[in-house]
Amino acid sequence: MPVFITLEGIDGSGKSLHFRLLVEYLRSKEYDFIATREPGGTPLGERIRELLLDPAYPMTVHSEAFLYAAARSELTLKVIWPALRAGRNVVSDRYVDSSLAYQAFGRGLPPEFVAAINEMGTGGLKPHRTILLDLPVEVAMERKAAGPRDRMEQMDAEFFERVRAGYLELAAAEPRRVKVVDATRPVEVVQAEIRRLVEEIWPRPRRDGSGPGA
Amino acid sequence: MPVFITLEGIDGSGKSLHFRLLVEYLRSKEYDFIATREPGGTPLGERIRELLLDPAYPMTVHSEAFLYAAARSELTLKVIWPALRAGRNVVSDRYVDSSLAYQAFGRGLPPEFVAAINEMGTGGLKPHRTILLDLPVEVAMERKAAGPRDRMEQMDAEFFERVRAGYLELAAAEPRRVKVVDATRPVEVVQAEIRRLVEEIWPRPRRDGSGPGA
Repeated sequence: MPVFITLEGIDGSGKSLHFRLLVEYLRSKEYDFIATREPGGTPLGERIRELLLDPAYPMTVHSEAFLYAAARSELTLKVIWPALRAGRNVVSDRYVDSSLAYQAFGRGLPPEFVAAINEMGTGGLKPHRTILLDLPVEVAMERKAAGPRDRMEQMDAEFFERVRAGYLELAAAEPRRVKVVDATRPVEVVQAEIRRLVEEIWPRPRRDGSGPGA
Repeated sequence: MPVFITLEGIDGSGKSLHFRLLVEYLRSKEYDFIATREPGGTPLGERIRELLLDPAYPMTVHSEAFLYAAARSELTLKVIWPALRAGRNVVSDRYVDSSLAYQAFGRGLPPEFVAAINEMGTGGLKPHRTILLDLPVEVAMERKAAGPRDRMEQMDAEFFERVRAGYLELAAAEPRRVKVVDATRPVEVVQAEIRRLVEEIWPRPRRDGSGPGA
């Protein structure tokens, strides 16, 4: 059975770097998988991503939640589900937990509402494993201090405190699915733990003609 | 009290023409109002409108519903509500009934789902009066026969039959709000009926210093 694995964390958690390193590692092992990112991953999704990240478009919290849900529905129904059905593994940079953490805990939308629109749009697909890169907000903000910021990154520390607390609440509610990784440690240490958590549930490659242990 | 009036109908019903004629008429009377259209009416909404109408972006029915809801939330919370609060009347080319007719009745999404996301995104705002331009689908399709078609207009006759039936069901459920106008008649006749239905509930302009009947 193929697996669906997601990486989550607040901006500045090193998530994008670790996702890239993980994908490189999985490729080096010649594993069969596809890598996606959210929002994005489809032609419409990438256009929606532009709107979401562009500081030129301030938007209501509801519009924001709907745009994420629209991009996610496209990605899930057209890319992730078909890959899993074809027996391919999927790793994704962000998924539904991001909307729960950012739109519900961060922005204050009712969690049931955010959960409901995402359940409808994804056919209820849940990751088999979610790796949450956790670190204090001040550390994350220091890391992001240099360079221009997109619309989401322009939010203040209090917002990210709520998002981080939301993520940890999601992890506490589903400890078997969501694994919390301390992201304050050196990159190699964090990446090694991510790889271990991924390989723990990664399906064994079939070796034709060989039995178990061969 | 200001009023919020919407115009609805399937593609080819003459809705856009009649909306334009209505706006010209209301301007000629120097009434205080704003005119909006859906999807669109805000910077973000117009960008979303481009995505929705572009045949280059096929999309899941859920993504479509979310994009309409996102554009509508922007328009309602940033334009329509503030106008009404400031005492100005609002006329809109399409509103929530379009999503119910197209996404629920036309595409087959659960009506409760479409109603729920729109209720959340609009703060529950309903029009005081909705004018539904009704006509047989074959007449509408003949009118649209010439010229290029956008993504919505490329749907087939059966789809528009479901949308038309959906509109009529909405009208039957709320006869005091939704007024059905036979759009097969000549433009002047249809427009005259629209104006009558609008003026019937339009607030009387205040004439300072004059009493009733003065």
